[in-house]
Amino acid sequence: MAEFSVTKLGTKNEQKIFYLVLDGLGGIPFPGVGKTALEAARKPNIDALLPHATCGLFDPVEPGITPGSGPGHLGLFGYDPRKYQIGRGVLSALGVDFELGPDDVAARFNFCTLDKNRKITDRRAGRIPTETNVRLIKMLIEQVRLPGSAQLFLKTEAEHRGLFVVRGKGLGGNVSDTDPQKVGALPLDPVARDEQSKATAGLARDFVQQAEKILAGEDKANGVLLRGFDKFPDIPKMHELFPLKCGAVATYPMYRGVARLVGMEVLPPPADLPATFELAAAQRDNFDYLFIHVKYTDKAGEDGNFEWKVRVIEEVDALLPKLLAARPDVLVITGDHSTPAALKAHSWHPVPGLLYAPATARPDNLKSFDESHCRCGGFGRMPLRMLMQLALAHALKLEKFGA
Amino acid sequence: MAEFSVTKLGTKNEQKIFYLVLDGLGGIPFPGVGKTALEAARKPNIDALLPHATCGLFDPVEPGITPGSGPGHLGLFGYDPRKYQIGRGVLSALGVDFELGPDDVAARFNFCTLDKNRKITDRRAGRIPTETNVRLIKMLIEQVRLPGSAQLFLKTEAEHRGLFVVRGKGLGGNVSDTDPQKVGALPLDPVARDEQSKATAGLARDFVQQAEKILAGEDKANGVLLRGFDKFPDIPKMHELFPLKCGAVATYPMYRGVARLVGMEVLPPPADLPATFELAAAQRDNFDYLFIHVKYTDKAGEDGNFEWKVRVIEEVDALLPKLLAARPDVLVITGDHSTPAALKAHSWHPVPGLLYAPATARPDNLKSFDESHCRCGGFGRMPLRMLMQLALAHALKLEKFGA
Repeated sequence: MAEFSVTKLGTKNEQKIFYLVLDGLGGIPFPGVGKTALEAARKPNIDALLPHATCGLFDPVEPGITPGSGPGHLGLFGYDPRKYQIGRGVLSALGVDFELGPDDVAARFNFCTLDKNRKITDRRAGRIPTETNVRLIKMLIEQVRLPGSAQLFLKTEAEHRGLFVVRGKGLGGNVSDTDPQKVGALPLDPVARDEQSKATAGLARDFVQQAEKILAGEDKANGVLLRGFDKFPDIPKMHELFPLKCGAVATYPMYRGVARLVGMEVLPPPADLPATFELAAAQRDNFDYLFIHVKYTDKAGEDGNFEWKVRVIEEVDALLPKLLAARPDVLVITGDHSTPAALKAHSWHPVPGLLYAPATARPDNLKSFDESHCRCGGFGRMPLRMLMQLALAHALKLEKFGA
Repeated sequence: MAEFSVTKLGTKNEQKIFYLVLDGLGGIPFPGVGKTALEAARKPNIDALLPHATCGLFDPVEPGITPGSGPGHLGLFGYDPRKYQIGRGVLSALGVDFELGPDDVAARFNFCTLDKNRKITDRRAGRIPTETNVRLIKMLIEQVRLPGSAQLFLKTEAEHRGLFVVRGKGLGGNVSDTDPQKVGALPLDPVARDEQSKATAGLARDFVQQAEKILAGEDKANGVLLRGFDKFPDIPKMHELFPLKCGAVATYPMYRGVARLVGMEVLPPPADLPATFELAAAQRDNFDYLFIHVKYTDKAGEDGNFEWKVRVIEEVDALLPKLLAARPDVLVITGDHSTPAALKAHSWHPVPGLLYAPATARPDNLKSFDESHCRCGGFGRMPLRMLMQLALAHALKLEKFGA
């Protein structure tokens, strides 16, 4: 007897699915305002979709679990993020087009600010300009000398962020972060979690010590924090799972990286939000599925800047007609997780999601697309990965299961 | 440590559960009307249950998955339809009381209309009368000659539908459909998906070729389409899983078949809807659980006949007092899946469900039993199979789990 598999039900057709992802979209009421950013924003174009849309609340991983960007996006793309895990370092590598090989271990690194007792005063080194990052990485590459035959690669991502890769036969990827994720603490020692990763941890320790000496004269970026050590994961491609040719429109390296990881064709990075929407609309006929990523809702949330988050949502709303002009058969608007400005961080709160499908939706006619109204949405509450199979269903891309 | 199992919690008592299944009940707003059939129907008797009922939306398989009738009913009966799969042919065999043996492979067949280039112009041969079906099957049985020692059995179901069985040592059941599920296409060649099924595919091919010659003089039914090849599946009986003596009241062969498959006692087919309700009420004391099947909501949906679907719901509502007079302790009203008239097909939309239990329900006091109100029902949204354990619970047929 055949096993159940959504993949087996897939059927190709001409219908177009747009996935508009506002990173970190969900929130909680902001103190003093009493509303979430989505509740406070003026968004007439999004709300005009509601008579032809079904809404709900979606858990990227499980209730109560705060996802990183990797698990959040895997959930968006229909994967179970509890099954497929990607290190942050691997995402960073993908985002800067670094081709990871089987002997490579990658980690994300941040420049940070350390005080004279080596305590962290800024985990992002005041968000130094990307040009400073480039200059400092050049210094590090010239001066760091790792022991043995291992090779070191460092790449600028943007601002304070970079990619760290060590290449060497038999290096394991199971090493703990040196980033304690809080200010006032000392950087942590990288610890191997298995035998094969001991050499990797040693190399990471060497790198951190040498980097602090080399950067000692810097005003802001006088330290480095490493996190998300990992090797390249074995994940099936989206087009192997679903009857879709997939394209990605994203500006930020990490999201371009995760899109590439699942096999999407990643389009050239648009310069700004209007260019993002124009590119997506122009590419309508070239793909069955377009992932369109908006970063600044998350960034505003992480900075605790509620007003900014509201403004980004309003800007997206104003640009929405550009996407609608391309006549998607199914348009999903959601996030990869919540980033409440009140918490200045990713959170576990389920993310609101809207699926617009004029021909096939059972509309729930909510008055507004936001956290409180989505509670009574027609999708109820479900794992975020289910939204992908709902999008396929509404685009009539899944055959009936069973007789 | 013992594994969790609902079966282990079962306890017998005198309480009666009625499962009133309106096939294909769920819908989406019909164009021009702006309501679903359930929203448009006048149904005072059903709505009068709401002060003693809890409602919700139920996914027969998973969100986004359109179920066939087999998976839909397995979900209704508390089975995980992703785990237990039944070929359409097996359902057909059960429905016409054909006793499948271990050497048998069954498939559903439809008479269809082919044009002079063998393209399908009607997959249902204009829904020929059952008498024509009987006459043609007699012709086929007399004239088809399969090679070797394999035996052929053909049985009329109703209208254009029939059962095809080949019996022979070692025949495999893993053969692809010849029904392309669309008009304008040629019938497909039956293809074996494993080594043991090659002989079966050959026999099916022979049958199709000979049948087309024999039927060449027919006006409408001049071809046959085969689908859902399968052998008898190994599924636990309902009375092995739950503390229930189960009976089924259904007119249509396939639903009688699926009831028999899960071990229900299938009562003689009632002639019409009033007889269906009378029979169920009269059988109250003979069973713990009665499955009562109403076909025409689905048929109306598949025909795109919104008005008819509304009328069937209103007819069921008018007959409801007959069932209530039998004082069920728990009455469930739901469907096996949605069949929106707007889509003229089964769909993935979750099906509304109502559980009336005057002594044990936590009522949600909805204003109307329909898709939009069920969104905010007390059961929320869950897999359809959970409704079975909720019915058992409300009938006090499940012991406490754990100390």
